Amino acid sequence: MDTYAGVLKGVIWEIFAQARIADLTHQVAPQNVLQAGYLLATAYRYFPEGTVHVAVVDPGVGTDRPAVAVETPSALFVAPDNGLLSSTWEVLTEKERAATRIVELTESHYWRSPVSSTFHGRDIFAPVAAHLASGVELSKLGPPRRQLVLLEGIQPVKLKGGIIRGRIVHIDRFGNCISNIEKEKVGSIHQQGWLHCRTGPHRLKGLARTYADEQSGCPLVLFGSSGRLEIAVRDGNAATQMGIGIGDEIDVWAE
Amino acid sequence: MDTYAGVLKGVIWEIFAQARIADLTHQVAPQNVLQAGYLLATAYRYFPEGTVHVAVVDPGVGTDRPAVAVETPSALFVAPDNGLLSSTWEVLTEKERAATRIVELTESHYWRSPVSSTFHGRDIFAPVAAHLASGVELSKLGPPRRQLVLLEGIQPVKLKGGIIRGRIVHIDRFGNCISNIEKEKVGSIHQQGWLHCRTGPHRLKGLARTYADEQSGCPLVLFGSSGRLEIAVRDGNAATQMGIGIGDEIDVWAE
Amino acid sequence: MDTYAGVLKGVIWEIFAQARIADLTHQVAPQNVLQAGYLLATAYRYFPEGTVHVAVVDPGVGTDRPAVAVETPSALFVAPDNGLLSSTWEVLTEKERAATRIVELTESHYWRSPVSSTFHGRDIFAPVAAHLASGVELSKLGPPRRQLVLLEGIQPVKLKGGIIRGRIVHIDRFGNCISNIEKEKVGSIHQQGWLHCRTGPHRLKGLARTYADEQSGCPLVLFGSSGRLEIAVRDGNAATQMGIGIGDEIDVWAE
Repeated sequence: MDTYAGVLKGVIWEIFAQARIADLTHQVAPQNVLQAGYLLATAYRYFPEGTVHVAVVDPGVGTDRPAVAVETPSALFVAPDNGLLSSTWEVLTEKERAATRIVELTESHYWRSPVSSTFHGRDIFAPVAAHLASGVELSKLGPPRRQLVLLEGIQPVKLKGGIIRGRIVHIDRFGNCISNIEKEKVGSIHQQGWLHCRTGPHRLKGLARTYADEQSGCPLVLFGSSGRLEIAVRDGNAATQMGIGIGDEIDVWAE
Repeated sequence: MDTYAGVLKGVIWEIFAQARIADLTHQVAPQNVLQAGYLLATAYRYFPEGTVHVAVVDPGVGTDRPAVAVETPSALFVAPDNGLLSSTWEVLTEKERAATRIVELTESHYWRSPVSSTFHGRDIFAPVAAHLASGVELSKLGPPRRQLVLLEGIQPVKLKGGIIRGRIVHIDRFGNCISNIEKEKVGSIHQQGWLHCRTGPHRLKGLARTYADEQSGCPLVLFGSSGRLEIAVRDGNAATQMGIGIGDEIDVWAE
Repeated sequence: MDTYAGVLKGVIWEIFAQARIADLTHQVAPQNVLQAGYLLATAYRYFPEGTVHVAVVDPGVGTDRPAVAVETPSALFVAPDNGLLSSTWEVLTEKERAATRIVELTESHYWRSPVSSTFHGRDIFAPVAAHLASGVELSKLGPPRRQLVLLEGIQPVKLKGGIIRGRIVHIDRFGNCISNIEKEKVGSIHQQGWLHCRTGPHRLKGLARTYADEQSGCPLVLFGSSGRLEIAVRDGNAATQMGIGIGDEIDVWAE
């Protein structure tokens, strides 16, 4: 880790000394907006209501891509508007979406000065988050926006033959390969019979309840702690052993 | 690092907003209960009295392996009962052991709901730790237990010829190889003459006081900051240069 | 990460329970005083006034190298006096230097006891920092000193032909190679024409404003968020692709 994350904390405490700050992750694959967005969407709900979440995966830093602050009924987000909040938007219910407010960050009064052209995390996102945490109203940060930039293809699709096609959106430090296929989405099919799963050259059958359901060294398919379908190897590393990477397609169907 | 550790903090703050939380380590070799237990046992005493320590290396998550909370005279621990607390138990004095209370975690009132089958860190251990930190009495968490599961072979043994045989229990980021042989255990022998040390094909003689006692690039044996015998290479990486791994045997004797 | 950093927090909280603690970095190349000093010098100014910064890169731990605490008009530092604070000293203005106080750490009353010979971070630096943060006066920690040990060659030099020769002092996790050449130092020359840059076998021309100014995969030269000249590769890793390492020379000049 560089000092980048530490510096954000200094900037936040300068503005709001009482802030309690947790690092969600600094191990997102460089510039991987898909993975970062997935991780945020699955993690934020475990924090107290009203927590401000700062997410900075920002390949377009220094260009004119807009930056936003978002307030849902349960949390606040500060991020570049480059699709990073797509997965978070996807997990909101219709009712939550209707109650969500978005503003574009334009009020430089709430930023550090001068703003660098390469580190908006320090100069814009962290200061804005600190002001929000300290009680500044969302509407002060800039004009309202109607919509977020949303990434294409972050939701699984249904193919003919009852196949659901998703993607690997994250690989954790154990090498478990986590997809964007949620339990509810395949709830109906996996009760009809054996669950089949295919990714690259691999075909797997069955559905484990926990890692210990398989022999050591064997691959298994299960719904992980995030409620998404994942491929794991008991006591092993599925990503390296099976050659699976972020973005890879994964198909599931019932017998 | 994944978001797993960050999520635990969210869960803790949700229950006990005043908690100050430090990460001890997230770099334990996957499923290495021996290494994790050693790290915990050597680290916990540096925290303020009454600190709650959560340790989750849990290959049996989702099976019926029990989970425990432990209160010693100086600290509290929440962990799966899979041997992870063996080293901590070993470093307790007889008097401390007599005053130690153990409960099995059964009261789901103190857990998140629903409990996943793969992430008890988030759903059981972190919530229980937060409740303990906030003042909940140990006995509320479940029924008392008499004993912890203890790993075999975590203590060095005495062989004939005055040889003490221990194991490498940790390799730090500098590549220093730390054994389970405590200073007190070899105190008598290393004052009788030269200390000899053998691990794999390597034989070392002498006992350094500090890393700077040797030339750059040379291996040395010393008692490290944890009070355990360790093998290091001045300005180098003993683990990779000498091919030493966690679990390797190490013998020491006096001339 | 080992438990070393976590243990420092325990030690600090034992002395000063209200401390808010941020990790700046634990990824300094082993024993690299140059890199660590650079990272500290560029990071500390983003923290609230009066923050205590503990820096421990300490190849001479256990020898008689002195340890110091330093109070500048804006911050406090606790570190071995081995050149680690050179870059911080370099960024101070003349006025700030005149107002800076240095003491050698000799008052063991403010240390842990016993002091190990290999982990002064835990036994001396962290306790002293905690006492300073809790309000202990600098002068209580030991006798005043006039000077810090300063590394040679941490400032760029001017060669004939208008060439400024600096060094790579840090490589961040994206592989961006950051030099010790500050914007102000080359401000005059890069307005006269094209900026030329040479490191190892590579020659680059031009000055980007942000990473997005180049095509994906192309190298670029820009002033990064720390105000120093850096070499980057758009969507790539300059250090590995171009074979650049910490300590490498870098020359810049105008056409």
